[in-house]
Amino acid sequence: MTRVSVMGAGAWGTAFSLVLADAGSEVVLWARRPEVAEGVNRTSRNPGYLSDVELPAAVRATSDPVEALDGAEVVVLAVPSQRLRESLRGWRLPASALVVSLAKGIELGTDQRMSQVIAEAGAVHPERIGIVTGPNLAREIAERQPAAAVVAAAAEATALRLQTVCHSPTFRPYTNGDVLGCELAGATKNVIALAVGMGSGLGYGANAMASVMTRGLAETARLGEAMGADPHTFAGLAGMGDLAATCMSPLSRNRTFGEHLGRGLGVEEATAVSQGVAEGVKSCESIADLARTHGVDMPIVTGVQRVVNGALTPPEALRLLLSRAPKPERT
Amino acid sequence: MTRVSVMGAGAWGTAFSLVLADAGSEVVLWARRPEVAEGVNRTSRNPGYLSDVELPAAVRATSDPVEALDGAEVVVLAVPSQRLRESLRGWRLPASALVVSLAKGIELGTDQRMSQVIAEAGAVHPERIGIVTGPNLAREIAERQPAAAVVAAAAEATALRLQTVCHSPTFRPYTNGDVLGCELAGATKNVIALAVGMGSGLGYGANAMASVMTRGLAETARLGEAMGADPHTFAGLAGMGDLAATCMSPLSRNRTFGEHLGRGLGVEEATAVSQGVAEGVKSCESIADLARTHGVDMPIVTGVQRVVNGALTPPEALRLLLSRAPKPERT
Repeated sequence: MTRVSVMGAGAWGTAFSLVLADAGSEVVLWARRPEVAEGVNRTSRNPGYLSDVELPAAVRATSDPVEALDGAEVVVLAVPSQRLRESLRGWRLPASALVVSLAKGIELGTDQRMSQVIAEAGAVHPERIGIVTGPNLAREIAERQPAAAVVAAAAEATALRLQTVCHSPTFRPYTNGDVLGCELAGATKNVIALAVGMGSGLGYGANAMASVMTRGLAETARLGEAMGADPHTFAGLAGMGDLAATCMSPLSRNRTFGEHLGRGLGVEEATAVSQGVAEGVKSCESIADLARTHGVDMPIVTGVQRVVNGALTPPEALRLLLSRAPKPERT
Repeated sequence: MTRVSVMGAGAWGTAFSLVLADAGSEVVLWARRPEVAEGVNRTSRNPGYLSDVELPAAVRATSDPVEALDGAEVVVLAVPSQRLRESLRGWRLPASALVVSLAKGIELGTDQRMSQVIAEAGAVHPERIGIVTGPNLAREIAERQPAAAVVAAAAEATALRLQTVCHSPTFRPYTNGDVLGCELAGATKNVIALAVGMGSGLGYGANAMASVMTRGLAETARLGEAMGADPHTFAGLAGMGDLAATCMSPLSRNRTFGEHLGRGLGVEEATAVSQGVAEGVKSCESIADLARTHGVDMPIVTGVQRVVNGALTPPEALRLLLSRAPKPERT
């Protein structure tokens, strides 16, 4: 039985703990707040997220990171992307553990992907690092609806080991060696979902949303290609799959946040209504920065960034995107 | 002012007439039923489809195909794919007109794409043939919501001419030279939408639907590659874009038909409820046939085909699709 630590008891950390337990692992879930850990241990439910979902007996919780990490063969990092570095600085990861990121974001200031932050701030060898991504809305995973996912790692042995650790009867992970592409796709997806949500909030229908998704994925793939990612990654579950699930679902945080913006709320108001900021609001800055560095044109990411910064209203941004001159689809 | 005939007054033919008129053309809309043509001419509305939409003054209608085609510089074919050949046999296309197909299907029996049927049954030179495809739900187009589309033609001059003819303030066509890929993507999309609808009818959420979309587009691209299409087409508006719009929208005929199947209705019952059969129900046979001919594995198309033929129930088909052994995403 593999001993897995899940560091972070938000919706996705909680749902992924359930997957790991279903797949046969012994899970220790670390929660920042002691009352959440106590709640999990006393009631088998996380009082903060997905509180109606009963967690398997193999999941227990603690708010002590030392206890959570003690003896872990696999450490799953489920904290928000902008807090990962500071969290890793406060933790001591077991020397031989595999380390997996669930967060989808690019660090502000450094423009680093999560696997890079783990290598640097956690002093973990890249061969022991992996990420889990794909079309995985936490609520549906927690309800044990069938889902496919991607486990990406530079080392094939790491990918295969992680695949086994999280392959449950309802959660089906595929391996992928393109960590860079999977991370870029996951982070940029949140920004595109903001744009799609804005369109929806402005009253646009499926045609416009599908166009934004398609052009958004194309600009993501352009950035990926410029940075050395495998272009096929963007057509797969980590790219199109994740984007489609996020943009189709009313449960998506980034899409919903974008809808608030589309309906005329400012970022602060939308943050208040959403009880927290969406990942894409932060990541759009770092991704626009990467695009500039690599000389790639990303009009959707830049449009979202300008809305977030208050330089454009959502109607202005979408009008700019949708009124570009007609031309061949690929230039 | 370009004189355009639109042959077929269903929802898409009607909406596209409005686009053409908005783009500055003079449009004659051919309706099979005289009362529909009279209705359009008397009330500027199509009594059969989108009857709340006021058509521009530049759209007039007739039920006489000779009158409709007389003097047309561009002929837009908007009849269902399985009826295109017999329609063309009864019509005399102007010798120098460009001929455009709006239908998305593969002909049963011959496995021909619409552009091939036009060349053969209409005796039209391939250089004068084009297709319009992309994320274009008729209702939204008729409401003048912003939309992007693809105009594909083997001859670049034809694509550019057609692009100009249908470029309105709200409808933005991109050109593409890959007619084969665009047609395969459009036809197969309807089949994938049936599978996505089945999943939705069975109660699955966005994760499973996004996975079916992603894997479905991947198998479409495999077929396209085997037949000589440009793989990039499938990641563009004619591929991913059209698929996403269809699968996201409650207005989609194929997705809704699939939902009926997922809820337990048979094909005949679903046809009765839907007032007509969905394109994908027919095209799945021809596409499965093309896949066999070209030695390509298409589990989603084959699964839909077996449901349509009564060999599998929708739960059995989806279980088969979602329970395949875990493996690398690309093999």
